[in-house]
Amino acid sequence: MKDIQQIGIIGLGLIGGSLSLTLQARGWKGKVVGFDANEEHCQKALSLGIVHEISEPTSWQNCDCIVIAIPIDAAEKIMPSILDGISAHQVVMDMGSTKASLCNTIKGHPKRSRFVASHPMWGTEYSGPSAASNAAFEGKSAVICDKELSDMDALEIVEKIYKDLGMHILYMRSYDHDIHAAYISHISHITSFALANTVLEKEKEENAIFELASGGFESTVRLAKSNADMWVPILMQNRDNILDVLNEHISQLRKFKSCLEKENYEYLRELIYQANSIKKIIH
Amino acid sequence: MKDIQQIGIIGLGLIGGSLSLTLQARGWKGKVVGFDANEEHCQKALSLGIVHEISEPTSWQNCDCIVIAIPIDAAEKIMPSILDGISAHQVVMDMGSTKASLCNTIKGHPKRSRFVASHPMWGTEYSGPSAASNAAFEGKSAVICDKELSDMDALEIVEKIYKDLGMHILYMRSYDHDIHAAYISHISHITSFALANTVLEKEKEENAIFELASGGFESTVRLAKSNADMWVPILMQNRDNILDVLNEHISQLRKFKSCLEKENYEYLRELIYQANSIKKIIH
Repeated sequence: MKDIQQIGIIGLGLIGGSLSLTLQARGWKGKVVGFDANEEHCQKALSLGIVHEISEPTSWQNCDCIVIAIPIDAAEKIMPSILDGISAHQVVMDMGSTKASLCNTIKGHPKRSRFVASHPMWGTEYSGPSAASNAAFEGKSAVICDKELSDMDALEIVEKIYKDLGMHILYMRSYDHDIHAAYISHISHITSFALANTVLEKEKEENAIFELASGGFESTVRLAKSNADMWVPILMQNRDNILDVLNEHISQLRKFKSCLEKENYEYLRELIYQANSIKKIIH
Repeated sequence: MKDIQQIGIIGLGLIGGSLSLTLQARGWKGKVVGFDANEEHCQKALSLGIVHEISEPTSWQNCDCIVIAIPIDAAEKIMPSILDGISAHQVVMDMGSTKASLCNTIKGHPKRSRFVASHPMWGTEYSGPSAASNAAFEGKSAVICDKELSDMDALEIVEKIYKDLGMHILYMRSYDHDIHAAYISHISHITSFALANTVLEKEKEENAIFELASGGFESTVRLAKSNADMWVPILMQNRDNILDVLNEHISQLRKFKSCLEKENYEYLRELIYQANSIKKIIH
């Protein structure tokens, strides 16, 4: 496989920014060009060393790989024209949180095989280039979807990028990815948003939240700070899977409610024991 | 105020153990005697330096302060006899997560004024002496309840202990404490237990949870590892307040559900914006 000498990143926020900074921090010496629809983000990305140059993606003929790191609805919109514009040796990858819809949009595209669909399982509740980290992604999983639809050399380049970031790579169908992502990531965001709204609704003394909040509250509510521009499209696109898990979640909460209402503390204890078994999976 | 030379701790788990280890790590040179109904915990606490000696609380005439750090139902049971046994200069404090019921139980006790009701807003999802930390509590709030019912010198001793731990002290009525605790702490545990049960129910491929789980999932589900012996009594005792906030939480989740079902993405965006305002309170 040839060396990756130049990468182009569309979207210079948390994910695109962290990709560049972490690759560089881990010793990659190539050039990064970038573009962001937000001019302030472009300037910030330049000053933080996320990119060496800001330019239009139409001029990125020298990029070995073009990375799409923008909200998934925007990614879906630009993907066909990005593919239209690349040459036969260039690769396009995305890093979005849902995969089935995007893969479906471009499934008939003549250059589909130059695209690798992927989702690195890393993020924070912050956004924009200032939130980017040079120690991101490491030790986490990167999911590559529908790999049989990508050319071998395109796949190798994307695998190399994720390995250079210190990630381990999993392969699955885009359809399966979206189901798992609903369970493992998307529902957590909804519960956190809803918990924040619950507490803001019930606790009129904001000072009490501020002074009493402990680590437990902070960790369950932290995702509620997440960006709406990123999350509305994810929740929209993965709606059916998320509704399925959200219904289950509401019914699990109702079990706790019913235990308390009926003072059935034996069953309450069983529900907690059952929840404790997550220990075996998440250490 | 006289120096605190000896402390007795009933319950040598996460909270009692961390109290001792942190006081010692921050320079306190006094003696710690302890007792735990679990003999293994006693031996472990001795070997970890949590206590210098294991003995029966009935022999603790030399303790300036007796700390109750056991599940709140057990604390409520032993509190009257602990108060019966102390002399006029000794102080008793508890560290439990609910306050109204305990305070009510002992409100007519002739030595009520030697007791200080408190709740340090710190904990982890782990339990037992091995989970104890020598860097606990610092920077968090400690709530002291119904302080007018405690003697001034008793209050001063408990305040000194919390200040020595690096905590800032808040005062409130035990009744108000329990309402706030339902919003700020107890509901987070229920959502986390229910989220764990949701994912364990829906995601039959445990391997997928293990491999895909990111920081976001881990942080929302981490409290689900919490100990049932501690949490069943808390949820029991604070049942009315928790039901109130749990009903609100289910109704907030239903708003998200309804947005997805009706594809009302404008309102979904509003709900997320509203949740984002937790940023102003929790940094």
